[in-house]
Amino acid sequence: MQEGSVKATIITIGDELLIGQVIDTNSAFIAQELNKAGIWVRRRIAVGDVYEDIWKTLDEESRDVNVILITGGLGPTADDITKPLLCDYFGGKMVVNEEVLKHVRHLFENVFKRPFTERNMKQAEVPDVCTVIPNPRGTAPGMLFEKNGCLYISMPGVPHEMKGMMTRSVIPELTKRFRSDVILHRTILTAGIGESFLADHIQAWETALPANMKLAYLPNYGMVRLRITASGTDKVKLEDALENETAKLRQLVSEWMAWNGDLSMPQIVSTILKEKKQTLSTAESCTGGYIAHLITQEPGSSEIFKGSVISYANQVKEDLLDVHNETLEQYGAVSEQTVKQMVTGALAALKTDYALAVSGIMGPTGGTAEKPVGLVWVAVGNNDRIEATSFNFRFDRNRNIEMTAANALNFLRKFILSSTS
Amino acid sequence: MQEGSVKATIITIGDELLIGQVIDTNSAFIAQELNKAGIWVRRRIAVGDVYEDIWKTLDEESRDVNVILITGGLGPTADDITKPLLCDYFGGKMVVNEEVLKHVRHLFENVFKRPFTERNMKQAEVPDVCTVIPNPRGTAPGMLFEKNGCLYISMPGVPHEMKGMMTRSVIPELTKRFRSDVILHRTILTAGIGESFLADHIQAWETALPANMKLAYLPNYGMVRLRITASGTDKVKLEDALENETAKLRQLVSEWMAWNGDLSMPQIVSTILKEKKQTLSTAESCTGGYIAHLITQEPGSSEIFKGSVISYANQVKEDLLDVHNETLEQYGAVSEQTVKQMVTGALAALKTDYALAVSGIMGPTGGTAEKPVGLVWVAVGNNDRIEATSFNFRFDRNRNIEMTAANALNFLRKFILSSTS
Repeated sequence: MQEGSVKATIITIGDELLIGQVIDTNSAFIAQELNKAGIWVRRRIAVGDVYEDIWKTLDEESRDVNVILITGGLGPTADDITKPLLCDYFGGKMVVNEEVLKHVRHLFENVFKRPFTERNMKQAEVPDVCTVIPNPRGTAPGMLFEKNGCLYISMPGVPHEMKGMMTRSVIPELTKRFRSDVILHRTILTAGIGESFLADHIQAWETALPANMKLAYLPNYGMVRLRITASGTDKVKLEDALENETAKLRQLVSEWMAWNGDLSMPQIVSTILKEKKQTLSTAESCTGGYIAHLITQEPGSSEIFKGSVISYANQVKEDLLDVHNETLEQYGAVSEQTVKQMVTGALAALKTDYALAVSGIMGPTGGTAEKPVGLVWVAVGNNDRIEATSFNFRFDRNRNIEMTAANALNFLRKFILSSTS
Repeated sequence: MQEGSVKATIITIGDELLIGQVIDTNSAFIAQELNKAGIWVRRRIAVGDVYEDIWKTLDEESRDVNVILITGGLGPTADDITKPLLCDYFGGKMVVNEEVLKHVRHLFENVFKRPFTERNMKQAEVPDVCTVIPNPRGTAPGMLFEKNGCLYISMPGVPHEMKGMMTRSVIPELTKRFRSDVILHRTILTAGIGESFLADHIQAWETALPANMKLAYLPNYGMVRLRITASGTDKVKLEDALENETAKLRQLVSEWMAWNGDLSMPQIVSTILKEKKQTLSTAESCTGGYIAHLITQEPGSSEIFKGSVISYANQVKEDLLDVHNETLEQYGAVSEQTVKQMVTGALAALKTDYALAVSGIMGPTGGTAEKPVGLVWVAVGNNDRIEATSFNFRFDRNRNIEMTAANALNFLRKFILSSTS
């Protein structure tokens, strides 16, 4: 699979990555972009702000890959050692780059509206052996080096600065330099079947896959994403062959297929609603706004989403969603009766085609023998009908919130697709 | 800093990490736990499901560290090669472990309520040269190996299974085996000052820090977290020395100090409200429930949080928050007047001591010359007064949502602290 392809290593630098204070989202973004460009990431390494560790990592990785992408450690403070280290590593000396200086001065004077100090002057210094990569979104410039046939690209660790630089400069540069393999992916999302059952069910097909194709199982939130990856040189032929195999897989898993493509559950629901030109509201208790957040994270969500009542307290369920006090008294907040009334209340208050309601016990406390931590009631409705279901998750609080959101949205997806209007 | 301490490498295995389909949160959790136990993480490496790459990584890392923690690749499907590879690497053969078999069978029959198949039988097989680490939350057992003075621990990649195993078995085992350095941290959160200005301001103090202490700048959401890390052998002495230096730092940054300790902004607001026994509601437009989610992510949030009106559509602002139609017509949804009326509406509808309202343009579209993408109005109020402020962020949609939430909560924090009641 990897033979003949251009290989890369991603190195992220910073002590904060090694004590777990920061989750490394940069590596995932860089890997995605490289992958789309047909460059194969062989390893991702996080090292601390330690001179000899970074040096050693650069040495080791340069033996195995064509390009090394580095983020982090470019700030103006004493713990940021990447720039002087790269200067030493490539045998250069630090010089002020006039273009960078102009840009940094402009940012301070016109955008940040803060005085430009001596320390900021240092941000305009780069090793004289590098090619500067502009950073329109921030002060730390990117740098490109070459040594023994390996390309090194250093970018700032601030995610939106790095992202801008990747898209605008780094990917075009890499595409220009490397004639690489075409790598294509097809993804199918399944729901309602476990990973090992799925594997049994499609084993014969998987075993018969051609050598340039590979299947990956990506389980999450109780659903399994199946991804076929194909590599080759002829893009048109590869697309045909990949579509051919994907069609066979679609047929095999049709019973459990939630989506043909690589969308998240909130994106799937949004896509269906946009096509139907219909709207959604949510009434959330235990998820506390997380479902509304997932929906509104997507650009253009105002087309299909009107709003939400987060009724964490029972009083709010009564006041804003018209849940009856007797219902809460008799069945409790986590019950089929309550979530159904929440749907009715949300449809009336927010005037949408569909409403989704959830109420559950996310933990770590609040469970009883009858209603344990992880019990969730979900209801979905439109003006014709309301349906409800319950789940029993067994995880920690954050995971329970995520599981509830994903499975409630999947329940909503099925409800919408089964609605005639 | 690192001399004498126990060193670790974290290896995460899975192609999904190298194509960026999954963000690696496991490494951050493992690093945090190791760090608290005084074990120094030297590198974090992500490799694909490639036999020779994993083998080579194990070889290389074992030369430099005392313990290697591995996650991922333990599933029952063909792309999961970690278990057979470890069996080969340590020269064992696969045998069925009776304890594991009993546990897996129990999970299938009593918890998942699915038939136990031949393929699941494989999950009970382990190399005969390992010590099994129980996985109460899932089917794949953990494994412990030893070779040439290095300890290897393999855990499943499913986050909540790995977390349970780390806390319950791995950390106690490592603490028992290694007499390690004490590592202590103190963190101070600052807001309203840039990283480079802060660095200038505390330079003399930072330079004078003793050799066993190190300062890190962790900027995020326009705020800067300052973390002092100290290592040593005598815990009591080290705590004294660290508190002494932290006290100096607190005095130096008192003007910008948002919190003395390592809490997130939602945790800070919750802590203050719990102390004051007061309650909060939110009225969110552009953040779409994200602020409510951040607050309710914390266990026990029902003590201080009653709920939210997510008024994504203007109609919802009018219907549920009593924002006047004329206000929306005259000033627009993103205006000081609108967010102030949203606060009044939320206080009335949700009956809380404080209400926080936000309305802005998160992008990528929807901006105008007068109101560009990134403009956000925030208002906070109680029954005595309402205050409003605006921000101009210049980032992408997700980042704008995060920046808005963090800065709105900081605005709320200051408002609460300045309120007499």
